[in-house]
Amino acid sequence: MKPKLTIVKIGGNVIDDPEMLQTVLKEFGQLEGAKLLVHGGGKIASDISKRLKIPTQMVDGRRITDAATLEVVTMVYGGLVNKNVIAILQSYGTDAIGLTGADANTIPANKRPVNDIDYGFVGDIDTSHINTERLSYLIDGGLVPVFCALTHDNQGHLLNTNADTMASSLAIALSEGYDTELIYCFEKNGVLLDVEDDNTLIRELNYLHFQQLKDDGVIHQGMIPKLDNAFLAKRQGVNVTVKHALNLTSPLGTSLL
Amino acid sequence: MKPKLTIVKIGGNVIDDPEMLQTVLKEFGQLEGAKLLVHGGGKIASDISKRLKIPTQMVDGRRITDAATLEVVTMVYGGLVNKNVIAILQSYGTDAIGLTGADANTIPANKRPVNDIDYGFVGDIDTSHINTERLSYLIDGGLVPVFCALTHDNQGHLLNTNADTMASSLAIALSEGYDTELIYCFEKNGVLLDVEDDNTLIRELNYLHFQQLKDDGVIHQGMIPKLDNAFLAKRQGVNVTVKHALNLTSPLGTSLL
Repeated sequence: MKPKLTIVKIGGNVIDDPEMLQTVLKEFGQLEGAKLLVHGGGKIASDISKRLKIPTQMVDGRRITDAATLEVVTMVYGGLVNKNVIAILQSYGTDAIGLTGADANTIPANKRPVNDIDYGFVGDIDTSHINTERLSYLIDGGLVPVFCALTHDNQGHLLNTNADTMASSLAIALSEGYDTELIYCFEKNGVLLDVEDDNTLIRELNYLHFQQLKDDGVIHQGMIPKLDNAFLAKRQGVNVTVKHALNLTSPLGTSLL
Repeated sequence: MKPKLTIVKIGGNVIDDPEMLQTVLKEFGQLEGAKLLVHGGGKIASDISKRLKIPTQMVDGRRITDAATLEVVTMVYGGLVNKNVIAILQSYGTDAIGLTGADANTIPANKRPVNDIDYGFVGDIDTSHINTERLSYLIDGGLVPVFCALTHDNQGHLLNTNADTMASSLAIALSEGYDTELIYCFEKNGVLLDVEDDNTLIRELNYLHFQQLKDDGVIHQGMIPKLDNAFLAKRQGVNVTVKHALNLTSPLGTSLL
């Protein structure tokens, strides 16, 4: 039997709420068995960019990462957020180690080719080369890897990468050696029929239902790429749930079927 | 016989010179056997502080680390500098992993007590609790730890720490399990009789000679804490040299006796 591995992804809105962050990190530390955390960046990168007078360009909700913006996200995701998360986890006795995909060459990526839009220094994960051997070495040694959403191209450049995709790619790659569970945590109770009403939680969601809700325009736009990633992992045998960060250890949430 | 471990510390002026940084990282990667890097911060932290309109306060050449400054050094040392160093090392085939003292709880520290001066969030390393077991696990697994000068108090707070002290403390702690060599790299040829003249290099320096030169006011002020740390390591059996970053693999430099 494979050992259990829980991969938790916490979103930007959780990072932006210090109290919620403390709570979810404390609960994360109490999860039994091997675990791994992936965190988004939150609004801090945009705030710092603004204070440094670096314009933030978004296209379809995605940040365009020019050289100056790459420096900001490297500072904020890899430094400020990641290292504070590590310090907090250590204070709860969780032996966390902060990583980008460059560290230990864990997650190589390719700079996204320029088609209609030049996303700049954005990386698409080279999923077949995720370094599961190194990750297993860290995990099996009792360490808890904590990833921020940066990868590298193996040619000396860091690349900004979507944190949801990173979480699902890691879950899929690591499911070869572990019985892997993936939990997407954010500031809602799960997948909702009405994004404004936490009581409209869908407790179980299969792919056909998801497609139908997507076609009907019911699923909130921001949830679609997250759920696309989530179903990709589900199809590879990963157990996936989407839930509120404060419900990490509670069954409340949306389970993918 | 203990395995060999080379610990290299590169100073802020090396970080500030992209070409020198590339060269020294390439040469560092070519050093035989196990190795570990400690890097300073350079002027980037001051530049970013200035752009963010956070005043930089220095007392006796030491940065006062208030909460806003701690955020800046966490961003710059832990994020921007450390992660770019990792990406560069990976491009040269060196399997580097970036760390603060919080990561894997490698270097715990105590917030410096307030006496005459309140240094703020500055950490004095708890040398007897350096986690040599974890560090050996990483090193013996073939990884190359790369430390920026941040530690933590085990209560959720990061602390700004002197990089020279970090390098010597690591060298001393790790000398129990390794035949440890410590190389301080910076932008001069070594310890100089005249700081402006690289031809006045002292090739060998013992402690009495150092004390004498210090009393005579010959040693440049900035070198004194570095050499105090260096002799501390030397007395614990660590081989110590001080040299130019571009001479990492050349014998030119100052050897402590």
